[in-house]
Parts: sequence; structure tokens; C-alpha cells
Amino acid sequence: MKESLQQYAIIVAGGTGSRMQHSLPKQFIELAGKPILMHTIERFYTYNKDIRIVVVLPEDQLQAWRTLCKQHKFPVFHMAVPGGKTRFGSVKNGLATIHGEALVAVHDGVRPFVSTGIIKAAFEQAAESGAAVVAVSPKDSIRELTESGSQAVPRVRYKLVQTPQCFRADLLRAAYEQPEQEHFTDDASVVEQLGAGIALVEGSYSNIKITTPEDLLLAEVLVKQFEAVP
Amino acid sequence: MKESLQQYAIIVAGGTGSRMQHSLPKQFIELAGKPILMHTIERFYTYNKDIRIVVVLPEDQLQAWRTLCKQHKFPVFHMAVPGGKTRFGSVKNGLATIHGEALVAVHDGVRPFVSTGIIKAAFEQAAESGAAVVAVSPKDSIRELTESGSQAVPRVRYKLVQTPQCFRADLLRAAYEQPEQEHFTDDASVVEQLGAGIALVEGSYSNIKITTPEDLLLAEVLVKQFEAVP
Repeated sequence: MKESLQQYAIIVAGGTGSRMQHSLPKQFIELAGKPILMHTIERFYTYNKDIRIVVVLPEDQLQAWRTLCKQHKFPVFHMAVPGGKTRFGSVKNGLATIHGEALVAVHDGVRPFVSTGIIKAAFEQAAESGAAVVAVSPKDSIRELTESGSQAVPRVRYKLVQTPQCFRADLLRAAYEQPEQEHFTDDASVVEQLGAGIALVEGSYSNIKITTPEDLLLAEVLVKQFEAVP
Repeated sequence: MKESLQQYAIIVAGGTGSRMQHSLPKQFIELAGKPILMHTIERFYTYNKDIRIVVVLPEDQLQAWRTLCKQHKFPVFHMAVPGGKTRFGSVKNGLATIHGEALVAVHDGVRPFVSTGIIKAAFEQAAESGAAVVAVSPKDSIRELTESGSQAVPRVRYKLVQTPQCFRADLLRAAYEQPEQEHFTDDASVVEQLGAGIALVEGSYSNIKITTPEDLLLAEVLVKQFEAVP
């Protein structure tokens, strides 16, 4: 049965802190007393305590991460591997540690408010159809840039992509053997290049990626709600 | 000189509170001690104390709004008119109060964190080219729904639309004389239907529209920053 495949989560944290105007890489900024990345890892561990977690970090942050884990007595066993120059390279490095038949979630290290229900739905969909990405409907009108300017497009036809993005391991491996291309902005676009179909799973507006100072402000509020709901 | 035209702001507040899971219509929810709608109006008045402000509210909320203005001794002179069944109808009702040559901003009543710099840039662009909308780049990957599922599209080709949307009054009037269509999700799409070009003005990720409980949480934090920066 496909549902009984070993589950992995590759958690990609490549931030340097520049866009955040913060001295720390964003994944190490503390929320409720511990680094954002620890909150993110805990979501997957809460979902499934037998999941295998692979954290991908810039090479020069690995030592700092180990020190942080000791300081915080962080109890979740995981592997930490060095990232590549791009997100594509980082996922590829994480994937290299995963062997055999499995289901693999790729998730942003700074997306700590994903619910266990969403993780579950994404894994289940990937078990069924091979590739599933979490997405939400845009709340704003959308315009498409054109040669002469821009034009309104119907927003009901678009989805904003979040993570996790879950895949059968063989499919994800085949995808990441392709040469990197500029239009690969997420894992779904890499897998899609193979011709595989991507199923969509409903995400949540709370499942934010913390990339700007505004995101960090919202995160400081959301984390209190998450602490209250185990 | 076009810059010396009288400026108007039509501030559209049609919310009922249902999506917000709140007993009050979202425009009446208090932030830092006063209704969101008052914060929004104040942004335009801070930008230009001679601007003329037209607030559009559901008819059954007009009395409550007048009461709130008295209770809060709200000092900004403005006109309040009843909305239509849709956003299109509401803007049309607001526009009916505006005569002669002018520049008109249409703005969401629950978008209280727009900076005066953004308002200024949008009016200036509209004075120059007739139609300007504020927009930001999406932070997430985007997928387009297709008949067979969905496909990745390059996010650099898209913009998420905010408000204000500013127009020469004659252009906006001509646009709102057209019959309403389903694809009219904002004012730019209505004006564009006339064949007019729409200029884009850079928005801000702080310029949020408060529509979900998460937005309200962020708003409660952002309002403290705005109080500190006059």
C-alpha cells in the first residue's frame, strides 16, 4: 500500500537575512523563544513522529545550527546538509540523502505555521497521484505584464503556491536530474518539466513564508495561537 | 496644469463581517481604539487636507457610521453614500457625487496602511497618463488552472493589484457607464474595457486589505507602527 511508504521532509532554509533587514539569517530569528526553523521542523514531527527530516542550510550556517540545537536542547532527530547555490541545488543535495521508495515533502524552512492537516493531505495526494502542491486562491486582482504594459487577467484562474510540495521519491529524483532552468521557481515546476501532472491541495492563509518584516510581525502573533493549539 | 485638479477619494466599504468571523462589519472593527474605516480615511486626509472624501457604505450601515463618527468625534469632513449590490455599483454611486474635471482615487475601506507616498505617486501618475493602479510583485510561485489541471507560469510576469486606483474623472465616468461584467474585479479592469492603458505604481506589502482573521492580526501589529510614524 502506497500510504505505508516511508515519509521524508526536505526542509530548505537558504536565507541570509538581507531582505529581512535583520542581522540573523531569517531561519534563525527567534519566535516565542526558539528559531523559526525549529518551529517548522516540529510541525512535521508533530504530524508524524516517524518522518525522516533532512534540513538543508547554507554550508557556513551548519555549525551555528548545531550550536543552536544544543543551546535549545532541540529534541527532533534530523540530518543537516549543505545547500547549493540556488534553491534547485539545495533540494538536490537534500534529495541525495534519500534512497529507495518513499514519499518526499519539500518545505520552506521559514514556513512554520503549516497545519498537520495540510501536511497529511499533501502526502495522501502524492501517494495517490505522485505529485501534490499546496496552494491558495489569490485575494487580490491580478494583472499580467505585457509588451505594451499590463492587462487584467481573471484571478479565479490562478493559484498562489505554498509548501509543502509532496512527491513520490522516484519522480522527484528524475526531475532533479534535469539541468536547472530559470523558470524553476519551485519543485512543482521542476517535476512538471518531466510531463508529470501536479495535483493541488488547499493551503491556508496562515501558512505564510516569513520573508519580509511584515511577515515577521504577523508570525509573532500567529505563533501565540499555535502554542495554544497543539 | 493637471496636478492642480481637485482630488477626490472614493472609499468603498462593503463588508458584512461574514468572512472575518466577526459580529461587526470589518470596516467597523476597531484598531487602536477606532474603526478601521477611520484609519483609512485619515491616510488620505493626511496626504492632502483639501482632498474630498466620499465614503460608500451598505445602506443599512449609514446610520451606524454616523453614530460612530459622533462617538469618536471623527474630525474629517466627508460625504457618506449608500453602496450598490456589487463593488461596481458602489463605485458608481460614489462617482455620481463627483462633478467636473478632477482626479479620483478609488480605495478599499479596509486598506488602512497605505502610505501617503503611495497615494501621491498614484495621483501623479493618473494626472500624467489618466489611469494608475498600485500593485506589488507576488512573493509566491503562481499556477494557472487549465482544463486538465494546472500549470506553472512565470511569476515575474504577474502583479497583485492593491488600491488606490487613480483616474481622471472623465475616464472613470465613461468606464462606469458601461454595463457591469463578471470580469470586473477592480476599477482598472473596468477602465481597461474602454481600451485605456493602465499604468502601474509600486505598492507595498504593508498595504494590506483586511479580509481574513490573519489580516486582522497583522493589522493590530501594523497599526502600532503607523501610530509611531505620523
